[in-house]
Amino acid sequence: MWNKNTLTEKIGIRYPIIQAGMAGGITTPELVAAVSNAGGLGTLGAGYLNAEQTKESIRKIKQLTDKPFAVNLFTPETPEVRSEEVNQANEWLSPFREALHISQVPEVNEITTAVFEQQIQVIIEEQVPVCSFTFGIPSRSVLQQLQAENILLMGTATTVAEAKANEENGMDMVVMQGSEAGGHRGTFSGSFEDAMIGTMALIPQTADNVTIPVVAAGGMSDGRGVLASLVLGAQGAQLGTAFLTTSESGANKQHKNAVLNSRENQSAITSAFSGKPARGIQNDFMIKMKQYETHLPAYPIQNSLTKPIRGEAGKQNLPEWMSLWSGQNPRLCKQQPAGEFIASIVSQITEMQT
Amino acid sequence: MWNKNTLTEKIGIRYPIIQAGMAGGITTPELVAAVSNAGGLGTLGAGYLNAEQTKESIRKIKQLTDKPFAVNLFTPETPEVRSEEVNQANEWLSPFREALHISQVPEVNEITTAVFEQQIQVIIEEQVPVCSFTFGIPSRSVLQQLQAENILLMGTATTVAEAKANEENGMDMVVMQGSEAGGHRGTFSGSFEDAMIGTMALIPQTADNVTIPVVAAGGMSDGRGVLASLVLGAQGAQLGTAFLTTSESGANKQHKNAVLNSRENQSAITSAFSGKPARGIQNDFMIKMKQYETHLPAYPIQNSLTKPIRGEAGKQNLPEWMSLWSGQNPRLCKQQPAGEFIASIVSQITEMQT
Repeated sequence: MWNKNTLTEKIGIRYPIIQAGMAGGITTPELVAAVSNAGGLGTLGAGYLNAEQTKESIRKIKQLTDKPFAVNLFTPETPEVRSEEVNQANEWLSPFREALHISQVPEVNEITTAVFEQQIQVIIEEQVPVCSFTFGIPSRSVLQQLQAENILLMGTATTVAEAKANEENGMDMVVMQGSEAGGHRGTFSGSFEDAMIGTMALIPQTADNVTIPVVAAGGMSDGRGVLASLVLGAQGAQLGTAFLTTSESGANKQHKNAVLNSRENQSAITSAFSGKPARGIQNDFMIKMKQYETHLPAYPIQNSLTKPIRGEAGKQNLPEWMSLWSGQNPRLCKQQPAGEFIASIVSQITEMQT
Repeated sequence: MWNKNTLTEKIGIRYPIIQAGMAGGITTPELVAAVSNAGGLGTLGAGYLNAEQTKESIRKIKQLTDKPFAVNLFTPETPEVRSEEVNQANEWLSPFREALHISQVPEVNEITTAVFEQQIQVIIEEQVPVCSFTFGIPSRSVLQQLQAENILLMGTATTVAEAKANEENGMDMVVMQGSEAGGHRGTFSGSFEDAMIGTMALIPQTADNVTIPVVAAGGMSDGRGVLASLVLGAQGAQLGTAFLTTSESGANKQHKNAVLNSRENQSAITSAFSGKPARGIQNDFMIKMKQYETHLPAYPIQNSLTKPIRGEAGKQNLPEWMSLWSGQNPRLCKQQPAGEFIASIVSQITEMQT
């Protein structure tokens, strides 16, 4: 049985299909619930939400489904805000602000872990079934609080060593993000370039080296990809871009259209939007900012500086200046309800297995 | 039946497992024959051989097997030799030559297609069953000569567009090289960076867009990878690095050991060895030459300039200055006879299928 393993048993889901916790308004409660209702694991991408918004979204999800779901948090990083660096980046960004008629130059306050800690409390209060993390492993005390509440912990890794670190720190399962994946790289030790490992190579090498269930992420968009992940040794497949284009996704129309009309070789990795490497469809912003990339402030500082530009570009219908996160599998993405999408994966696999 | 499809029928092989035509003495006649005798398709990597050596190797293979095998050729490129460029590159390479006590500074003659054309005649004379190509699609007249002799043609591509070009030019099948693959990138249209697509994403998107059989390459090293390739829509899997470490491989001992002792995140892409991007285990030569990479002469000029260094480094047991081609799957590679390796793939798949 392709859909019965430790991962599906632990979480209590029918199919080993996980919708990635894409941050930035993509994972609406409707999307999360639709995925969970269809037998997969929906995930609220709460990386950019505050505690109140996180709680509100979780409550909406609970109104829409009684099935297990996950909340994804960004393990916090607290780089020092250096004013010269911020001023320099703001200067490089000024042509975009001017063209968009944004008069206010963004400022950045001190970066703290306060929101993250509040989010953890919300997850505990709301008894969220699964809590997943990107950008590293939270402190032992945070993990222990969640474990004490029997909340399942799902880490993210991009190398075998990072997977082992997740296991050693008590994660119940680990998402292995291959180089094909859209959005931010989850690399948290060493350079991201060294950790650009294709899913085909990453999954078996990881499965051989950890005992916790491995979830494959990066490059899968249909039944073929999900079944191939299981064959490689994963117990589940996490799909992002393929859910971004579904009807319930909150990604804006230009972003959805960009993905639906792009090809496998049109995305690239950029740090220009957030200060952290991420895969998106190559556009004018990425090309123009490339020269400054190694001198930009760290994540999440740069993210704050580009936020007004990305927001305004969205409103003004200018995809060339938006972050168009996408994996390397856009040709397989369709505009369809998430539940129908999961049903199509299941029937494709069932057919392949007979 | 996982091992019965158009590809295996066309070529007349028992298993859809292809040993990649790695050039530079790795694919000894013994290796090629061992693979073919075990039911796969062995490939002579003739990219760096002259016509006489190619003929000799083919005859040895025929003595060792009566099963189908392939010869891989490099579709020729004839960049102009510019003396200033060559002199500059030789200067950058001089610290390596000096340390290795190589007194002669290499010279490069005009690059022609003569050897390639002679190789084509050898392949026709010797009635080689399959001829595969890397670095682009040869002229129509070359392909027609081979087709007239019923020699099967196998192209290499790294994007869907390149796969379509292979199909349109009459290739009988196409190897899709994912970003995980070791050795040279087969990209022949556009920049190689844009064509670094992971195998997991590349195979289904290609299979949906061409009608000729697709062969997956990059990241597979065992039964899991081979079966996953077929699930993704490929009709065969081409393995390189995993055959490089077999007993019959002619790769030198330092190269084999480097692969056997490396990890998934230790390789990188470099143009410093040959003038063309290729994946190898990161070493001192790659790191030191990185700064000059965009100013080096094109392939195969740079390849000629570094040849004495690579050769002498091999003799002097200095892997840090050798080209240690490897894919992203070294943890799965073993030192074992090629026939045993194929048998293990087959039994792994048989077990997974029951």
